Amino acid sequence: MAKFMDVHNGFVGVTAEQLREAHDRDLAIEKDEGVHFERAWLDPEAGKVFCLATGPSKEAVMRIHERAGHPTPEVYELTVEVA
Amino acid sequence: MAKFMDVHNGFVGVTAEQLREAHDRDLAIEKDEGVHFERAWLDPEAGKVFCLATGPSKEAVMRIHERAGHPTPEVYELTVEVA
Repeated sequence: MAKFMDVHNGFVGVTAEQLREAHDRDLAIEKDEGVHFERAWLDPEAGKVFCLATGPSKEAVMRIHERAGHPTPEVYELTVEVA
Repeated sequence: MAKFMDVHNGFVGVTAEQLREAHDRDLAIEKDEGVHFERAWLDPEAGKVFCLATGPSKEAVMRIHERAGHPTPEVYELTVEVA
């Protein structure tokens, strides 16, 4: 299982409730691709959303986001993590 | 205390050890600005690094990264988080 960060643009002014709804649409179908979206963060001023996910491939992550209505081409595979 | 995601470009081919060293340089001085870098993730193919931090301001995060030798203008304040 690999780890991914994806980035969405254009979420300016989005509310906490709207992010919750968008994230829930991912969670509802993520099992179809063996993906799990662990967490999502929003900067509503810049309109940026970052999602941390695990899954079998970048394409699997992209397919879930696309079906959930918020496609993004920006998905990065995180092969190194430090804390 | 606010939460931030910052993004670095140009880290193509960077190793786990090099990321560890870069992150340790942040950790060594982060208290000067009341910042804490919780986690950093690397995609060495795309050359992207994402750092999740807490701190008093975007500028405080930027000052630590600048002093540690890896400045970035891309720092986002994460006012919403879902899991």
